[in-house]
Amino acid sequence: DSLTQAQFDTVYNSLSLVIASQLFTAIFLILALPRVLPRYRQAMVIAAVVCGIAAYHYFRIFDSFKGAFVTDAVGGRGTYTQAEGVSFNEGYRYVDWLLTVPLLLVELIAVLALARRVQASLLRKLIPAATLMIVLGYPGEISSTDGARVLWGVLSTIPFLFILYVLFVELTRSLDRQPVAVRALISRLRILLLASWLVYPLAYALPVLGISGADAWVLKQGGYSLADIAAKAVYALIIYRIARLKSYEDD
Amino acid sequence: DSLTQAQFDTVYNSLSLVIASQLFTAIFLILALPRVLPRYRQAMVIAAVVCGIAAYHYFRIFDSFKGAFVTDAVGGRGTYTQAEGVSFNEGYRYVDWLLTVPLLLVELIAVLALARRVQASLLRKLIPAATLMIVLGYPGEISSTDGARVLWGVLSTIPFLFILYVLFVELTRSLDRQPVAVRALISRLRILLLASWLVYPLAYALPVLGISGADAWVLKQGGYSLADIAAKAVYALIIYRIARLKSYEDD
Ligand SMILES: CC1=C(/C=C/C(C)=C/C=C/C(C)=C/C=O)C(C)(C)CCC1
Ligand SMILES: CC1=C(/C=C/C(C)=C/C=C/C(C)=C/C=O)C(C)(C)CCC1
Repeated sequence: DSLTQAQFDTVYNSLSLVIASQLFTAIFLILALPRVLPRYRQAMVIAAVVCGIAAYHYFRIFDSFKGAFVTDAVGGRGTYTQAEGVSFNEGYRYVDWLLTVPLLLVELIAVLALARRVQASLLRKLIPAATLMIVLGYPGEISSTDGARVLWGVLSTIPFLFILYVLFVELTRSLDRQPVAVRALISRLRILLLASWLVYPLAYALPVLGISGADAWVLKQGGYSLADIAAKAVYALIIYRIARLKSYEDD
Repeated sequence: DSLTQAQFDTVYNSLSLVIASQLFTAIFLILALPRVLPRYRQAMVIAAVVCGIAAYHYFRIFDSFKGAFVTDAVGGRGTYTQAEGVSFNEGYRYVDWLLTVPLLLVELIAVLALARRVQASLLRKLIPAATLMIVLGYPGEISSTDGARVLWGVLSTIPFLFILYVLFVELTRSLDRQPVAVRALISRLRILLLASWLVYPLAYALPVLGISGADAWVLKQGGYSLADIAAKAVYALIIYRIARLKSYEDD
């Protein structure tokens, strides 16, 4: 496939936007650490690490993209075609998710500072489910047949639904001891999580739905970029607000 | 277009000046954090993050410029022409503004430490307006016709005027509880903001006004550079002075 100048620029600038957002959210969280009580710093540190890991992977994705699409037009104003011998590596995303998706869930549980026993029981469900979800999705992503994509996609959706069940049903039961303002923030956080996480299975399903070509590809990269900013950076800023609010209430 | 050696050097050195200014203003602000009361540190941290984001984008703009203009003259003393296959990406500026312009407004509101309710109401107006201003300007910037540039420019000017109204009319009403010396600094800050922010729509309008060619382009890059130093680094230093003054008064 080849990209027009405008398509190339859109992907290029979206990827760069993600790098800047993740990197500086991570730095902001580290600088803001002393502003929350020690018991909420675990959540903030994990949030910073997640954004840092994302920034690293986006640096790589950016380079991979720049290498994979080239033009010989003067001033770069022309059509970009796929380079010889260099591939755009979509796999970076799965490596990123394998590390960050379980951490995003740990971050959420940590900021609530629930009873130790409740925390441990939630994490024993969420972490293996998140890992399983990513590991089962990967063979589908790299397969070239629709059949395999559907099969692995369905298998990966089982732990995905289980995670949503734990977050929206089981977790809700543990929230009555949280201050009212915190409960409102947590419900906003879960809606953000749901809306942004749904982008990934949708993007995965595009080829099966027969949506392909340069436009679809650009849309997919843009969608991933916005979803990654929402699911990690904006998510982290809400975690920070919860931590601030709870620090204030506890004081 | 091609650039003379002097034009190339002017842009090259202006871009490098911006990197140094933003990076070290960010570092200065972080080092100066303990010198203000905790309640003003949020503003300082945001100011540091804004300068950091700008430094990151100027690194990228600098590399993009170095790649896009080349010469084969010995010792680099000759005419620089546009390279094949590499474009100078003006889009970095819009990506930068999308993140930093809302943050510059948050920084200003945060340092005033107004009542929570007043703060929230000002931010609910300023942040969406700033985002809208940048998002509406972008299609005009990348369009190749004067008509589209004028249309999007006018649309983007509406939120711009609204921001100025909120800052110069609504905000003024909340300032009577601020110490006199702080009020003087705030009025200086707003004049700096007005003077530097006007550079961006002017630079945007140059092609419509029929001002083009290498000289105009060099002037535009130089103008952006100085405006960015004023609107972020100098601005941050005034924010720091306000924070110092208020820390002293509150103590
Ligand atoms: C259900 C499902 C998937 C879910 C992926 C998810 C939910 C990814 C979340 C990523 C996040 C949150 C990244 C952080 O920024 C896959 C693996 C695409 C395979 C198809 C089925
Ligand atoms: C009104 C207007 C614009 C305003 C841009 C501004 C006001 C940008 C401010 C940038 C800052 C403050 C950067 C920080 O360093 C655009 C988008 C050019 C489009 C044309 C109309």
